[in-house]
Amino acid sequence: MIRVILLGGGNLASHLALEFFKNSNIELLQIYNRTLAHIKDKEIYAPITDTTETLLDADLYIIASSDTAIEKLSKELAAKKGLVVHTSGATPRSILSNSHNGVLYPLQSFTKGSQINFKNIPFCIEANNKEDFILLEKFAKLVSSKVYAMDSEQRKNLHIAAVFVNNFVNYMYSIGEDICIENGIPFEVLYPLIQETAEKIQEISPKDAQTGPAIRKDKKTLVLHQNKLNQNQKYIYQLLSEAISNRN
Amino acid sequence: MIRVILLGGGNLASHLALEFFKNSNIELLQIYNRTLAHIKDKEIYAPITDTTETLLDADLYIIASSDTAIEKLSKELAAKKGLVVHTSGATPRSILSNSHNGVLYPLQSFTKGSQINFKNIPFCIEANNKEDFILLEKFAKLVSSKVYAMDSEQRKNLHIAAVFVNNFVNYMYSIGEDICIENGIPFEVLYPLIQETAEKIQEISPKDAQTGPAIRKDKKTLVLHQNKLNQNQKYIYQLLSEAISNRN
Repeated sequence: MIRVILLGGGNLASHLALEFFKNSNIELLQIYNRTLAHIKDKEIYAPITDTTETLLDADLYIIASSDTAIEKLSKELAAKKGLVVHTSGATPRSILSNSHNGVLYPLQSFTKGSQINFKNIPFCIEANNKEDFILLEKFAKLVSSKVYAMDSEQRKNLHIAAVFVNNFVNYMYSIGEDICIENGIPFEVLYPLIQETAEKIQEISPKDAQTGPAIRKDKKTLVLHQNKLNQNQKYIYQLLSEAISNRN
Repeated sequence: MIRVILLGGGNLASHLALEFFKNSNIELLQIYNRTLAHIKDKEIYAPITDTTETLLDADLYIIASSDTAIEKLSKELAAKKGLVVHTSGATPRSILSNSHNGVLYPLQSFTKGSQINFKNIPFCIEANNKEDFILLEKFAKLVSSKVYAMDSEQRKNLHIAAVFVNNFVNYMYSIGEDICIENGIPFEVLYPLIQETAEKIQEISPKDAQTGPAIRKDKKTLVLHQNKLNQNQKYIYQLLSEAISNRN
């Protein structure tokens, strides 16, 4: 049984609170948030508090707050003997001043409300010494079957890669939807293609999976397409087509 | 029973040949290709030929060749009484000179070798008159459960939308993979996020699903990320981040 205190009141903290509560190998001792009202509904999982002074002794303190609050919370936990970790992809481990510190970064985009199956979510972990790493690894494996050791530099780069495959991909979907709406086409026509594109790269590298007019250097189609687009869409179409054409 | 002749020797024609052969409501009369060697392995499905003069009378002639060969094949089928359709997303119906003509456009990216379940692939159809449309719709529904009426203008725009959600998305995956490889991170760490991103937009509009530093206008992270990227990646990161920031 690993004894845990969770700090934070956002989406990630919300999902983690439920997961820890349900997990019989994890004892969720307390949930902290600066604004108590934001975690009022978490009282069913564990006692809640808005002052770090009232936090008990635990094996693990998980700071799942906004990135900007991590440093301050770390300092407020200075006297604690347990392992203090943050959950941020973009923040280095070195921001934590605790003698036992680490990072527990779940790589997923957490939307409020939707159910999350943590078993399939990759957890990237790092700690300041071997012993703490072993504890953190043991803990992460209670929650997920996909646990990866990753240092702060790797995590930062993984976070950038995630911006491309998640945020930017979603924006491509969004342009696709705009074009459909403008032309009276149901966006759902594109769902199977979107699914297939996402699944294919688990079998072959996206480099080998690249299709379309840009990789074929099909200039006629490239020009035809651009004439149909608005200014913003056209810039993006041109830049990405050039990048794909120049690749091979 | 609809009697069909298939023209073409590429990926799409290959997948269609197998599908028609297996489908007990479709009689595949012949398969044509200019280069006979490319369809030699299709002889198990139907008689093959490399001269349009030898083509029999059929209900439906499906030109699944390269876009550039459509017009010529249409002319060679001028004397036929059956419905002549092409399968191209980017080509207008008007390129067909046959008195009965239409379009049967399966919206998917067909890779050689991989199995295709046509039931889930959207077929966009169009014909030059009501009677031909009804035949084409009946035929398409034998193959797929997702049949959409779509005119040439809509189909052209759908094809452009597909470039964004398929080709450009795949390129984003490809940059994600590059960043992973450069930093000794297994690309598979990103698979669940890629899957979730693709699935989420079937429940909420991509506009509402947008997350990341650009939509948050988190300038600190945006600058931090750009400093890690190569020139090509940086251009793309900047342009897409600006477009996302300006959206809302």
